[in-house]
Amino acid sequence: MKFNIALLAGDGIGPEVINEAVKVSDAIAKKFNHEITWTPALTGACAIDAVGVPYPDETHEICMAADAVLFGAIGHPKYDNDPSAPVRPEQGLLLMRKKLGLFANVRPTFTFPSLIDNSPLKRERIEGTDLVFLRELTGGIYFGEKGRKDDGETAFDTCTYTRAEVQRLAKKGFELAMTRSKKLCCVDKANVMETSRLWRETVQAMEKEYPEVTVSYEFVDAVAMRLVQWPNSYDVLITENLFGDILTDEASVISGSMGLMPSASVGEHTSLYEPIHGSYPQATGLNIANPLATVLSAAMMFEDAFGLKEEAEAIRTVVNKSLEQGIVTEDLASKDSKAYKTSEVGDWLVANL
Amino acid sequence: MKFNIALLAGDGIGPEVINEAVKVSDAIAKKFNHEITWTPALTGACAIDAVGVPYPDETHEICMAADAVLFGAIGHPKYDNDPSAPVRPEQGLLLMRKKLGLFANVRPTFTFPSLIDNSPLKRERIEGTDLVFLRELTGGIYFGEKGRKDDGETAFDTCTYTRAEVQRLAKKGFELAMTRSKKLCCVDKANVMETSRLWRETVQAMEKEYPEVTVSYEFVDAVAMRLVQWPNSYDVLITENLFGDILTDEASVISGSMGLMPSASVGEHTSLYEPIHGSYPQATGLNIANPLATVLSAAMMFEDAFGLKEEAEAIRTVVNKSLEQGIVTEDLASKDSKAYKTSEVGDWLVANL
Ligand SMILES: CC(C)[C@H](C(=O)O)[C@@H](O)C(=O)O
Ligand SMILES: CC(C)[C@H](C(=O)O)[C@@H](O)C(=O)O
Repeated sequence: MKFNIALLAGDGIGPEVINEAVKVSDAIAKKFNHEITWTPALTGACAIDAVGVPYPDETHEICMAADAVLFGAIGHPKYDNDPSAPVRPEQGLLLMRKKLGLFANVRPTFTFPSLIDNSPLKRERIEGTDLVFLRELTGGIYFGEKGRKDDGETAFDTCTYTRAEVQRLAKKGFELAMTRSKKLCCVDKANVMETSRLWRETVQAMEKEYPEVTVSYEFVDAVAMRLVQWPNSYDVLITENLFGDILTDEASVISGSMGLMPSASVGEHTSLYEPIHGSYPQATGLNIANPLATVLSAAMMFEDAFGLKEEAEAIRTVVNKSLEQGIVTEDLASKDSKAYKTSEVGDWLVANL
Repeated sequence: MKFNIALLAGDGIGPEVINEAVKVSDAIAKKFNHEITWTPALTGACAIDAVGVPYPDETHEICMAADAVLFGAIGHPKYDNDPSAPVRPEQGLLLMRKKLGLFANVRPTFTFPSLIDNSPLKRERIEGTDLVFLRELTGGIYFGEKGRKDDGETAFDTCTYTRAEVQRLAKKGFELAMTRSKKLCCVDKANVMETSRLWRETVQAMEKEYPEVTVSYEFVDAVAMRLVQWPNSYDVLITENLFGDILTDEASVISGSMGLMPSASVGEHTSLYEPIHGSYPQATGLNIANPLATVLSAAMMFEDAFGLKEEAEAIRTVVNKSLEQGIVTEDLASKDSKAYKTSEVGDWLVANL
């Protein structure tokens, strides 16, 4: 098969980790007789520096024309302390999600047996954790009307959802639950928010189409608690944009393998794969960042975007092998073992595929 | 001194745990020569059953006339699965907060050395944790305009804040930080929300009035992570209503002593003290619920509402003693030790004051 992949390396360590994911993807393509064309494009702080906007039209066109997008990370400290600066890297991220129609962010959280003791949580609490969040990504308070009134003394943000928006996200949730243990949790704040009541009634109405799926409805505050207490009691969770932002980040800590977690954003026109970690500016250029989350994001891309399960499994297998054999970057290296460089880990993966 | 305390026992186990807090408070009052008049009033599901509304006017008048309010818990399972029912217990809670002007919810999270191993988190992650959330409680998306459009197909909620609302909450945060380790964290989502940008600029402008306080600004998703990773890196955190709802519940799990955590809501007209746990309907009437969170809430009341530090310390000391000696309800009893009844724990506290 032939694929055209848009390559958005972004800022900070983005280019370094993307580089390793490209190496591994190319090796897999070679092994399984596929042909990948990579088309690089600018986004984030580097795009602001180059052309003045964080998500240039040219980048958008490249993404629209691609079979999938592989994304590194964006963000630069020079924008950190001024969230009201007129142009900021995150705006590029939000614009990209909206323009590409990436309405569902898929965030798996699972444990790696060999890393389970890195977790801040006790082993018995997290063993067997294997949950997936589906976060709505193009609606809610992120994209509603916002502004100031009364000479700037009053600020407002509007959270809006339509039934159709809830349905398309929930549909993905039900479908995903059908391929897993048939348990779906709808996270909302229906005791306070009208949008949450719309979420809940919409999901309730869809239950009859998926009679095999057991649906629970839980308030976001209760989920924030139970995620730390018994993460392994969850399977598929669906939620709106802002709750998803908070809870997926909370959940990412649980497994102790945050630096390894991949994610996907799927939607109307294309799909995008990225590590959940940030641009880690302090490590830029040092060849020390962990490339595995990006490599595993590429695995998700092979499986979900291209339907190539075997290729994806081959990547996951070699990643597991590298973890077991301690071929890891400094974030995972134990006190008395060698820390490998970003590129060395990539080389090892390619050599051991 | 003489105090008039409104007593809102509420639903479920509320009356049982309140009962023990009253016993302990009366004993303390006797010991220190104070006189307490308790004025009971209805709220929650029991108020709906009795008079059709969850926060009757009469209850409001009793609270307004009191020196402080001691609150149990509200909520009944018959309302749980229908968050759009026209009358619900939580509405009473929100109305009460608004009408009493309880704009700041104070939620301490700390560890009890003897209970630290109950935490889902590893000991070394939580040792020394002693943080306080100040959650804004009468603004934000809880009280903004909300509703439906397009024949019910579109729902919206509005989050609104004024600079004055942020200032009065932040002022409490700075003042509290001054009495502690002078570290304040402002939690927001200023990279997305306009209300958050107002929060941040308002707090930034107040920094110069408290030159000794070190202020950090962190995004809510990052805080949701770091709370699980290194809770002991935080001291005082201030945040808006909805973020506070989620993060205080998440934080409540950390210490492993959720059933022991007190809280206060302070404001314009009076202040209210309550355990952070819910109405625990399954345990209603069984005399098994843990009364310590309510007893510790009474201690907060003595200290913060009445300025009686010694009385508060006496309560805390006897609570610690009961924990050390294993005079605890079944939630805390170890496998081979006796579980005491709710009222037995209260009796023991009174006898050992
Ligand atoms: C950078 C920020 C706007 C973004 C979000 O809030 O969606 C990030 O936190 C994420 O989760 O991808
Ligand atoms: C019951 C609910 C409305 C309430 C809230 O969201 O404020 C509760 O979760 C709390 O934190 O006291």
